[in-house]
Amino acid sequence: MNWEEVLAPRTARMKASEIRELLKLLDQPDIISFAGGIPDPALFPVTEFRQAYEAIFASDQQKLALQYSVSEGYAPLRQWLVSEMGKLGIPCNIDNILITSGSQQALDYLGKLFLSPGDTALVTSPTYLGALGAFNAYEPQYANIAATDGAGVAADDAKVKFAYASVDFANPTGRTLDLATREHLLDDAEKQGFAIIEDAAYQALRYDGEALPPILALDIARNGDIEKTRTLYCGSFSKTLAPGLRIGWVCAASAVIAKLVLMKQAADLHSPTINQMVIADVVTKTFDQQVEKVRIAYRARRDCMLQALATHMPQSVEWTQPEGGMFIWLTLDPSIDGAALLAKSLISEKVAFVPGKAFFHDGSGANTIRLSFSATNEDTITKGIKRLATLIRKES
Amino acid sequence: MNWEEVLAPRTARMKASEIRELLKLLDQPDIISFAGGIPDPALFPVTEFRQAYEAIFASDQQKLALQYSVSEGYAPLRQWLVSEMGKLGIPCNIDNILITSGSQQALDYLGKLFLSPGDTALVTSPTYLGALGAFNAYEPQYANIAATDGAGVAADDAKVKFAYASVDFANPTGRTLDLATREHLLDDAEKQGFAIIEDAAYQALRYDGEALPPILALDIARNGDIEKTRTLYCGSFSKTLAPGLRIGWVCAASAVIAKLVLMKQAADLHSPTINQMVIADVVTKTFDQQVEKVRIAYRARRDCMLQALATHMPQSVEWTQPEGGMFIWLTLDPSIDGAALLAKSLISEKVAFVPGKAFFHDGSGANTIRLSFSATNEDTITKGIKRLATLIRKES
Repeated sequence: MNWEEVLAPRTARMKASEIRELLKLLDQPDIISFAGGIPDPALFPVTEFRQAYEAIFASDQQKLALQYSVSEGYAPLRQWLVSEMGKLGIPCNIDNILITSGSQQALDYLGKLFLSPGDTALVTSPTYLGALGAFNAYEPQYANIAATDGAGVAADDAKVKFAYASVDFANPTGRTLDLATREHLLDDAEKQGFAIIEDAAYQALRYDGEALPPILALDIARNGDIEKTRTLYCGSFSKTLAPGLRIGWVCAASAVIAKLVLMKQAADLHSPTINQMVIADVVTKTFDQQVEKVRIAYRARRDCMLQALATHMPQSVEWTQPEGGMFIWLTLDPSIDGAALLAKSLISEKVAFVPGKAFFHDGSGANTIRLSFSATNEDTITKGIKRLATLIRKES
Repeated sequence: MNWEEVLAPRTARMKASEIRELLKLLDQPDIISFAGGIPDPALFPVTEFRQAYEAIFASDQQKLALQYSVSEGYAPLRQWLVSEMGKLGIPCNIDNILITSGSQQALDYLGKLFLSPGDTALVTSPTYLGALGAFNAYEPQYANIAATDGAGVAADDAKVKFAYASVDFANPTGRTLDLATREHLLDDAEKQGFAIIEDAAYQALRYDGEALPPILALDIARNGDIEKTRTLYCGSFSKTLAPGLRIGWVCAASAVIAKLVLMKQAADLHSPTINQMVIADVVTKTFDQQVEKVRIAYRARRDCMLQALATHMPQSVEWTQPEGGMFIWLTLDPSIDGAALLAKSLISEKVAFVPGKAFFHDGSGANTIRLSFSATNEDTITKGIKRLATLIRKES
């Protein structure tokens, strides 16, 4: 069989993700991994999950939990999200919420909703690798939005369909879009008629500073009503509760949610019924406490990593000061290649991280690396950063 | 916001599925529903599911179950599927198996893998509505393959990327592709260089007659090795165990599975970890017994519906004699429109079914309807068919 004859051209853009490949390293116990942006399983609310499954099987909901269900998602979970979104300055109702199989699936569906080959998607540079991966299937070109300096949008000639931005403590940089940038992005979107995809996967994980209003909240404040907005807010339970159930959501104008419901119906019918019911139970009982628990743990690890970087890194290295999330972003001396550094680091230092280049749509950023502090304890963070700094000093 | 300006042209083909809309009717207790092709929840192996969840939370696997996992799927489940596929005449290994979120997701991914706008997909007429829905997102045109008469493939000029066929007791007709048709389809695929998507969702639900080899098994028999085949086998646990966990699989040459793994990684990272672990536990303990239980129940319901049709329907009505699955397909007098009949039936007879037209890619089939016997007990089947026959007599 000659597969090349029948594969769609889009498949040429599907490449192995360095992040996912690197996840395999986590199985090696002697590696200190700052690589995968994964939550610490020690923080999962395991008891609440266990009790939620038990409650379903002890009730008359057990068959419902195993049966087909509607594409929109489990109504009590959507209703809970309506109330949560309200707390973020996003008044909405159940028709503004679609449950997805993780926010990664939301990115795939939004790419599918908007993009045809050659359309332009605006992204920050660097941006979330998984967003580029999801969008690539629909063969767009990319142009940059200014990330944090409030300078607004620079687009080229092709039709701009949307701007995608990870707004709080972004993967990979840890940076947060400031208020002026959020407003300027909305200005430009309104002027040019494009949509905004607001990736809020890390929104709840703020460790200090004041929370900024989501772009969707600013959009509602301008236009009076979620039905008149252009922003699609993508949320996730993967960073707060646990990623293994694959539950996220999109919150947006009901007209566009209705389109996404049809898309989901055709693409996988619905997210697993029992998973949605379990998440609905767990959030009701413990969401706020769970978020607080995660925040306390990750804040300490971030502080520890920042301290270790300040203590050990040579002056040529710069890094971000994230107010939350899971990531610190290092810019190395231009002579150092992140991928080559990783290869050496794995052998001589047994320290893993993600080379930054893959996060740039234009192939730049070879001298950047992403460090995650979420899944490693403080002693190990200190030890790992010290080792990495030793290697970087040698290479500089 | 003017969404029309930014939506991709593909979204114009995304329409509400009559099947899914009709699922809402099931909440009305006085409706006899032959509509949704859903399994009977009374047959779900609830105890085994409950025990599987309990076992995970009682073990050191609990955190693994809630964590991110690899895009390929949970290795023990893939390994079990290798052994099951072997029993069907499909020797393969773990690299030939991708776990998907239901076989509906497999259809979406295969559409994405092969189709660009204007490409041709060969389908039977009628065919599974959900396959047309999944493929439509990639904007193909459709042409017919001969369904059951062994007459081979008729394609038009556009590049044929694949033929899609639900092979055993197909949704919606209940028909099975005979051996000659399977071989002819392979002949034509080899001659013209296209792939075959074998939808085997109902494969295990045979009630009488002898099992036919899957097209993939015939393909292997011809070419000596799964790596040299062109057939992608899509399986599902939705009809045997339960659909609410959304777990299915694709079995195919490893080169194309590797492409699909990359696609899945970009589209939703992976199917839920805990769901895959639970399914792996349940199949190991009870798959064969569970399939036997389901077969016995559905066989009796099929027999009952066929008997009731023979007893009550007017001579102008023809129907299929399925050897398995969930569906019987009725062809009514050409003067009767299935959608209009449904509207009347819901009011005067309180009987629901699916009008057949939506299953035809060319808009024909207005005088056909699909009846499902899987989720209704025998008394209700007899009563419902009697009522429906009364209405059809009136309309003829």
